[in-house]
Amino acid sequence: MNWKAKPHSKELRFLISGLTQKNPFLKTEDLLSLLSAVREKNKFFVEEIPFRKLKNWAFDSKSGNLLHKSGKFFTIEGVDVKTNFGKVPEWSQPIICQPEIGLLGIITKEIDGILYFLMQAKMEPGNINLVQLAPTVQATRSNYTRVHGGKIPEYLKYFLENSKSIVLVDSLQSEQGARFLRKRNRNIIIEVNQEVPLLDGFFWLTLGQIQKLLNYNNIVNMDTRTVLSSIPFIRNDTVTGGNSNSLSDLLKTAENDIDLFEMDVDITKEEIQSYVLSPNEELFGMDDIIHWFTKLKIRYELDVVSIPLIEVKRWIKTDLQIRHEENKYFSVIAVDVYAENREKMSWTQPLLKPQGVGIVAFIIKKFNHVYHFLIQGKIEPGNMDVVEMAPTVQCITGSYEDEKTKDMPPYLDYVLNASPEKILFSTRQSEEGGRFYKEENQNIIVRAGDDFPLQIPDNYIWMTMNQIKEFIKYNNYFNVEARCLLACLGLELIRGDRN
Amino acid sequence: MNWKAKPHSKELRFLISGLTQKNPFLKTEDLLSLLSAVREKNKFFVEEIPFRKLKNWAFDSKSGNLLHKSGKFFTIEGVDVKTNFGKVPEWSQPIICQPEIGLLGIITKEIDGILYFLMQAKMEPGNINLVQLAPTVQATRSNYTRVHGGKIPEYLKYFLENSKSIVLVDSLQSEQGARFLRKRNRNIIIEVNQEVPLLDGFFWLTLGQIQKLLNYNNIVNMDTRTVLSSIPFIRNDTVTGGNSNSLSDLLKTAENDIDLFEMDVDITKEEIQSYVLSPNEELFGMDDIIHWFTKLKIRYELDVVSIPLIEVKRWIKTDLQIRHEENKYFSVIAVDVYAENREKMSWTQPLLKPQGVGIVAFIIKKFNHVYHFLIQGKIEPGNMDVVEMAPTVQCITGSYEDEKTKDMPPYLDYVLNASPEKILFSTRQSEEGGRFYKEENQNIIVRAGDDFPLQIPDNYIWMTMNQIKEFIKYNNYFNVEARCLLACLGLELIRGDRN
Repeated sequence: MNWKAKPHSKELRFLISGLTQKNPFLKTEDLLSLLSAVREKNKFFVEEIPFRKLKNWAFDSKSGNLLHKSGKFFTIEGVDVKTNFGKVPEWSQPIICQPEIGLLGIITKEIDGILYFLMQAKMEPGNINLVQLAPTVQATRSNYTRVHGGKIPEYLKYFLENSKSIVLVDSLQSEQGARFLRKRNRNIIIEVNQEVPLLDGFFWLTLGQIQKLLNYNNIVNMDTRTVLSSIPFIRNDTVTGGNSNSLSDLLKTAENDIDLFEMDVDITKEEIQSYVLSPNEELFGMDDIIHWFTKLKIRYELDVVSIPLIEVKRWIKTDLQIRHEENKYFSVIAVDVYAENREKMSWTQPLLKPQGVGIVAFIIKKFNHVYHFLIQGKIEPGNMDVVEMAPTVQCITGSYEDEKTKDMPPYLDYVLNASPEKILFSTRQSEEGGRFYKEENQNIIVRAGDDFPLQIPDNYIWMTMNQIKEFIKYNNYFNVEARCLLACLGLELIRGDRN
Repeated sequence: MNWKAKPHSKELRFLISGLTQKNPFLKTEDLLSLLSAVREKNKFFVEEIPFRKLKNWAFDSKSGNLLHKSGKFFTIEGVDVKTNFGKVPEWSQPIICQPEIGLLGIITKEIDGILYFLMQAKMEPGNINLVQLAPTVQATRSNYTRVHGGKIPEYLKYFLENSKSIVLVDSLQSEQGARFLRKRNRNIIIEVNQEVPLLDGFFWLTLGQIQKLLNYNNIVNMDTRTVLSSIPFIRNDTVTGGNSNSLSDLLKTAENDIDLFEMDVDITKEEIQSYVLSPNEELFGMDDIIHWFTKLKIRYELDVVSIPLIEVKRWIKTDLQIRHEENKYFSVIAVDVYAENREKMSWTQPLLKPQGVGIVAFIIKKFNHVYHFLIQGKIEPGNMDVVEMAPTVQCITGSYEDEKTKDMPPYLDYVLNASPEKILFSTRQSEEGGRFYKEENQNIIVRAGDDFPLQIPDNYIWMTMNQIKEFIKYNNYFNVEARCLLACLGLELIRGDRN
C-alpha cells in the first residue's frame, strides 16, 4: 500500500462525509428495506440445539474445552481470575480464546468529492434482526496471510500489502475483556482510487448515512462501530495549533472544491469550528491523563490464569448450556444455522448468550465550553494490560435490579433516572453476532446537569472527544464498549450543542 | 499528588536545565571524584561463587527454577520461543521473571529558576565501576504499596499518592525483552516545592550535568537513562502549531525570568528554535508510523510459553553457571556481595553475565532539514506486545565476529565502519547492575552520509526526535535500549547541527 496520499485532507474528508446524508446511489431509508430484502430472500434460521448435535465441535475429553475439530475459529476455555478491583476478589469463568488477530476493514472511495464507505449486509447467527450492516471485510489472520487455503473473503485483496490502496486508519483494537482472552482486531480503513465492482449485498454509503442508521436499534453491527470509532475528524495539529493546515483554512479549500452548504448539511461553518478545541480548554492535559492511567495500572492487580473449562467453579454444564449456578452473566449455548437460499449454507457453532440487556453510557458535561466525557478505568479479565478506559457505566442492568442504589456501580442510578431532556442519544446496539447470541446493550449519552457531583471516584477522569480520539490511535487504551458508544455519537456533539 | 502545576512551562524548564552546566552546589567534575569517594569509603566487593554458596536462593527441585526463599525479588525460569522474525525460528532460554512493576523515580526541585535533579551514588553488584549515578529512588511495588513491611527506601514518601509532589512525567516502560519476561517499570519524575533534606550520597544536579556525565563510560546507570528518555523538551502543541504557548513566546517569558544567555549555555535562541519541527517536515506522519507498526504486529508471530528452567534445551548447568552450549548470549552466575563499611552489608544473588560487549546504535539522517532516526521494529521474547521500536542496530558484537557482512544484522557493518566524523556520540553504558554482571553496550549515534541507501528493510522506518518522544509517552512502544540511547543524545542534536 502507498504512504500518505492526501494526508492534509483526510480528517476533513471524513468530516464532510459524516455531515452528508444525500447519496445519489442509495437513500438511507431504502437501505433499511434492502436489509429486509436480504433477510427475506435468504430465509435464515438459527435454532438452539443441545451440544451433542454440534457438528465438528466437541468438548475435549481431558480439559473439557469446547473446540472445533480443525483447530481453527475459536475455543471456549476457562480462566481463573484474581483482582483487587471491584467487589469480587476471585472467580473463574468460561472465556473465548481466539489468539489470531482478525481484520475488520472498510473500503472507501471518493466520488464527486465525497468519501463513500463500502458496507455489507451480513448475516451472523447471533444478530438481532439476523442481517446487519457490516464492514466491507471481516477476515481472520489465516485469510489474509494466506496460510491456509480456503475461500478468500470478497474484497480482501484490496487490504493486502501489495495492493495499491491508501491506508487512512490502521490500528489494533481490543474486544470485550469480559468474554475474550486478550483478543484484538486490526481496524483498518483504506481508500481505493481504481474502479471497485459492487457485488450483491454491498452498498456505498456516506459516513453521515451510517451515523443516521445508528439511531435505529440493532442495524449497524459491532464491527462497523469499532472501525468507525477510529476515524479522526480533526487533525491533532489543527486542534492544538493554528498553522497553515488549520481547520478554517481546510474548510475554505473545501468550499472551493465542493459547495459544502449546497449539500444536505444542516450545520454552519461556525458550528464545525466550535468542534475544534485548543488544549487550554481541556480540564486535564494528555500527560495528566497518562499519569492517572499509570497510577491505575499500579494500583490494580489482575492475575489471570488459563484453566481447563472443566475446572471452572460455580458453572454448571447441561445438555443445552453451560451456565453460572445463579444464572448470572452469560451462558454458553450451541446453535444450528441454515438458510433456504441457493447456496444451502448450513453450520453449527457455539455462542455466548447474555443473561440480560446491558447498558453502556457516557455522562458528558461542558467544562470551559467544551464537552468532556466521564471515563472509567476498568479492569476486565481479558484485558491485555490490566486496565482499559471504559464508558462511565458498563454493566448488565439485570444484575442490579434487586440492589439498593448504594450497591450499584457508580453512576448507573444517575443514567437510569436521567430526565429525557438530558439524554442526547439512546439506542440498543448489538454485540458481535458471530460470537454472541442476541446480545444487546442500551447505548446512552447523558448530559450531566448542574447538580452533577464534581467529586468523582479515583478511577474516573474527564476527557474531551479529541483526547479520546488521540488515545484510540494507540493500542489498548479504550475498550470496545467505549469505542462503539463513541461511534454512535459521531458528530452529534456539534448538533447537540444547539439544544 | 497534585494535577498539572505549571503545565505550560514544564518542557521549557526541562530544556533550560538540560542546557545548564553551571551548578553552585556541585561542579560536574567534582561529582566524578565524589563517586570515587563513595567507592573508597565503602570498599565494596563482588565475587563470583558457585551456586551452592548462594544464601536464601535455591533451585526448585521440581522445576529447576532459581528462586529466593522469601518468594520476593525475582526468579530465573525458562521460556520456549517460536517466531517467524529473524533467522532462528524456535529456541528455549533462561529468562528473568519479575512480575511486579518497579518504580524508578527522580525528585526535581526548582532553585533560582533552574530545575535540579536529586541523584544518588548507588552501588549495584553488577555495575562496572560498582557505584554509578542512579535515580532518587529505585523501589519495588511491595515497597511503595506498603504490602510488606521492610525498610522503606529513602525519599519514597515523596512519590506516594498522598504526597504534595507535582508529577511531571509518569509512564510505564519496558525492560530488556531478551532477558526479562514482560517486565516493566514506572518511570516517574516529580517536582517538590517544600524543603528536601539532602542525605549522604545524594546530589542535586542539573539535567545538563547529567547529560555531560553521559559522555563518560559507565557513570550514569540504566535506570537514570530510561527515566531521562521520557523527558519532553518541546510541547506537542508548540511542535505542531503556533498558538500562544509557542516556544518563542515561552523563551521570551523565560528570558524575562532568568537570563538564559548569562548562564553556561553555549547555544543561541535560534538554534533552540531549530529544534522545533512542524509536522510537514516529517517524512512520515504519526498515523503512517502506527500503520507501519500495526503491519509488523500482524506479520510477525511470537509464541512464548513459560517452561521449567530444567527443560530449557541446549543450555548447560555447571556448579558455577548456566550457559548456552556454544557459549553464546549470556550465562547465569551467582555472586557474593559485601562491603567493609559500618553497616557490614552482605548478600548473595544470581546475576546474568553477558558473553560480550553489545552495540546499540542509531543511524540518523537529515530529511527536509530535520534529523530523522532509523528505527527498527524488533521482536524479543519478553515483549508484552510482539514488536517494540528498537535502535537501528542492537546486538552482541561478538556474536558476529566470524560472520560475513551479508550474514550480519542490517546496518551493523555500516555502524562499525563509520568514519570518525560521522560519529556524533559513542560511549559505553551499563545495563542494570542489580540483574546484569558488568554488561555494557557501546552506545553510538552515526550520521548517515550521502551514500546511505534510501531503500530500507520493511521493519525499519525514519522518525524524528519529537515523534519518538511522543511514542515514548505511551506504553510499550520504544524498547529500553532505544530509550537509553536516546537519553544519551539529550540535546546534542542542537549542538550537532553546527558540525
